[in-house]
Amino acid sequence: MSPAGFSRRGLLGGSGALLVGVAGGFAGGRAVTSGDAETAAEAASYAFRGEHQAGIVTPAQDRLHFAALDVTTDSREELVALLQEWTEAAERMTRGEDAGPEGAVGGSYLLPPDDTGEAIGLPPGGLTITFGLGPGLFRDAEGRDRFGLADRQPEALRDLPHFPGDVLDPRRSGGDLCIQACAQDPQVAVHAVRNLVRIGFGRVSVRWSQLGFGRTSSTSTSQATPRNLFGFKDGTANVKAEEPEALAEHVWVGPGDDPAAGWLAGGTYLAARRTNMTIEVWDRQPLGEQEAFIGRTKGTGAPLSGGSEHTEPDFEMPGSNGTTVIAPDAHVRVVHPDAHGGARMLRRGYNFVDGSDDLGGLDAGLFFIAFVRDPATGFIPVQNAMAKNDALMEYLRFTGSALFAVPPGVGEGEFVAQALFA
Amino acid sequence: MSPAGFSRRGLLGGSGALLVGVAGGFAGGRAVTSGDAETAAEAASYAFRGEHQAGIVTPAQDRLHFAALDVTTDSREELVALLQEWTEAAERMTRGEDAGPEGAVGGSYLLPPDDTGEAIGLPPGGLTITFGLGPGLFRDAEGRDRFGLADRQPEALRDLPHFPGDVLDPRRSGGDLCIQACAQDPQVAVHAVRNLVRIGFGRVSVRWSQLGFGRTSSTSTSQATPRNLFGFKDGTANVKAEEPEALAEHVWVGPGDDPAAGWLAGGTYLAARRTNMTIEVWDRQPLGEQEAFIGRTKGTGAPLSGGSEHTEPDFEMPGSNGTTVIAPDAHVRVVHPDAHGGARMLRRGYNFVDGSDDLGGLDAGLFFIAFVRDPATGFIPVQNAMAKNDALMEYLRFTGSALFAVPPGVGEGEFVAQALFA
Repeated sequence: MSPAGFSRRGLLGGSGALLVGVAGGFAGGRAVTSGDAETAAEAASYAFRGEHQAGIVTPAQDRLHFAALDVTTDSREELVALLQEWTEAAERMTRGEDAGPEGAVGGSYLLPPDDTGEAIGLPPGGLTITFGLGPGLFRDAEGRDRFGLADRQPEALRDLPHFPGDVLDPRRSGGDLCIQACAQDPQVAVHAVRNLVRIGFGRVSVRWSQLGFGRTSSTSTSQATPRNLFGFKDGTANVKAEEPEALAEHVWVGPGDDPAAGWLAGGTYLAARRTNMTIEVWDRQPLGEQEAFIGRTKGTGAPLSGGSEHTEPDFEMPGSNGTTVIAPDAHVRVVHPDAHGGARMLRRGYNFVDGSDDLGGLDAGLFFIAFVRDPATGFIPVQNAMAKNDALMEYLRFTGSALFAVPPGVGEGEFVAQALFA
Repeated sequence: MSPAGFSRRGLLGGSGALLVGVAGGFAGGRAVTSGDAETAAEAASYAFRGEHQAGIVTPAQDRLHFAALDVTTDSREELVALLQEWTEAAERMTRGEDAGPEGAVGGSYLLPPDDTGEAIGLPPGGLTITFGLGPGLFRDAEGRDRFGLADRQPEALRDLPHFPGDVLDPRRSGGDLCIQACAQDPQVAVHAVRNLVRIGFGRVSVRWSQLGFGRTSSTSTSQATPRNLFGFKDGTANVKAEEPEALAEHVWVGPGDDPAAGWLAGGTYLAARRTNMTIEVWDRQPLGEQEAFIGRTKGTGAPLSGGSEHTEPDFEMPGSNGTTVIAPDAHVRVVHPDAHGGARMLRRGYNFVDGSDDLGGLDAGLFFIAFVRDPATGFIPVQNAMAKNDALMEYLRFTGSALFAVPPGVGEGEFVAQALFA
């Protein structure tokens, strides 16, 4: 609350903030606005601090604003100060408060406000803010160790290799830092990124940024599987929050994983791939072809070998034409853990439409995000297999790519990535 | 419902569709999905047919997908057939059904589906689809009367003039046709546009398309005034659905307005202006300066002359420095109806963020949409005054522009714009 008594909730006229318990393990603050109903999901707020960063196993919110930033200062002290300021602001915003203690309208008229104001009156929106560190933070493009961190660079934190089918736009790839803001309301997610960028003025600049409007994965068994822009259910086999053993095996970096990067234990890696779909071409394919490409039915998402959505595919089941029911190049087969030593990911991608391309089609697709314990075993081989063998590749183009190390959760009194600087 | 019994609702397992009445004047169909709560707003559906097109006075939904299209055929018959097919598909989709009678998964495996599928399982989402006709439909860039409509072109339907401050991108301007799809869920809005574009394959191509994530106006007194990316309440003085006399005076084209275009009676004009905000610069302005630019307080939205949000501004109230409390170049004064012969608009714009610009800032702002009875008196003078005199212009750049005539509502058995072709 600001000295003047203004906060996002405080501006809502006579209606007080009411703390409510909502099923699902989060504390919820409800802001009553006039005329617009508010759901439990919009009222939800997730703790910023914890063992792991929020926004990974948190049940995937509906909207995304993702930003990759370049650090424009060479000062380690300024970098640390930025992370400290970001920690405070992120914690405030995930509680549904303004980014700074004065707030959008509570400060001096002679100073720029410490919040930009477009989220005044909006509930917390289930906001999570997840920070990541790119390879350039440890060693920049010229090989310089700007911040004295080079000897702590994780072995796996390298620019992703070139994959077949990559037509990467350098203005949509890479970055020294990333911010993943997820919320039920895009205005809440945009507000979070914007204010963190504002706080970073003079120390960081936005390299690229991406909005996503529809989650394409479930990260909790409490969520229905959503659909991507191919019209198919996506992420059926995702690692879920309710699978602690799978999370430990496939998502969280273990204490002994990387001797040089002990600070990353309890963290993870975030691989981002902007994946354009040629949806106009896809839409002209027969239903049977579409299902053959995926290896699942479009309606229920069941494998073509039968059953229901969560039935394991039978890759050996013979088909009528001398091959298998699930084709050799079907997506579900090519990326299946059986083909990759059991590797699984926690996917958390979003559908996007960014206007139109130059051919009169929609610039649309899937902004793929996956969290993995080790990109070298958990992501790169799967991406390679997909790029080389997957029938879907005819309808996909990869236009952006980035890899970030995601530090572990932030304890009380700590700031993001503090252990890296210890 | 398709022959196979599949529809967006029919795929939801055992849960039946339940017709519920919801306050606010709409009929609501509720689809029960597992795990995700659904609000009354998401369950709402608005009738596609009526005296006026939906999506104008309809309480502004939260999300927008707007597309401008060029007609690629020269055949009047093909154009009429397209409008007939669009009418059927739009009516189906606003009911929460698939775009075609077979549906995403109900048709032959040997044919492309007549729906793309990404909205399977989603409720109607309060979807409205509003069609508009651009000047090029009546006379193309070479002056050709491709469809025999030139003598029925409305007098006011011309390309908007160049305004001071325009830095228009031709790839974000103009268009022979437009589709404004609004919904509570962006996936529902995107699905609508995509399927209409798919249906139009070979007859239209997308010229540009714009997503908006946060409504910036209220079109009903039942709605709270939302905030734009300047952090201020926007559209306080909007014409509202509950003002039939103001709608008749300022929004709906009258039967005698334009002798050549009697077909447009009961319709309106849609002016679209993609308005970039230099938000990083704005964010560094003191609160007092921001409020002076707007002429309202940032917190409550009250005029600087006092009162509450809906108090009329007192433009004569003297200030402490020899001028008025509300500055001569304050936005609220420059665009106020008093300065424009009482002209009012029905605004229905949306906030947008389209990634980043080349300067490390967000490509963000307001996708301004206004519905007016006559652009020559209701829009162009206001836009001119703003571009010339408004203090806000320092933080605005107009990057896209278009004007469309919006035909009246579609009666039973009719198709969109039928009277134009009679």
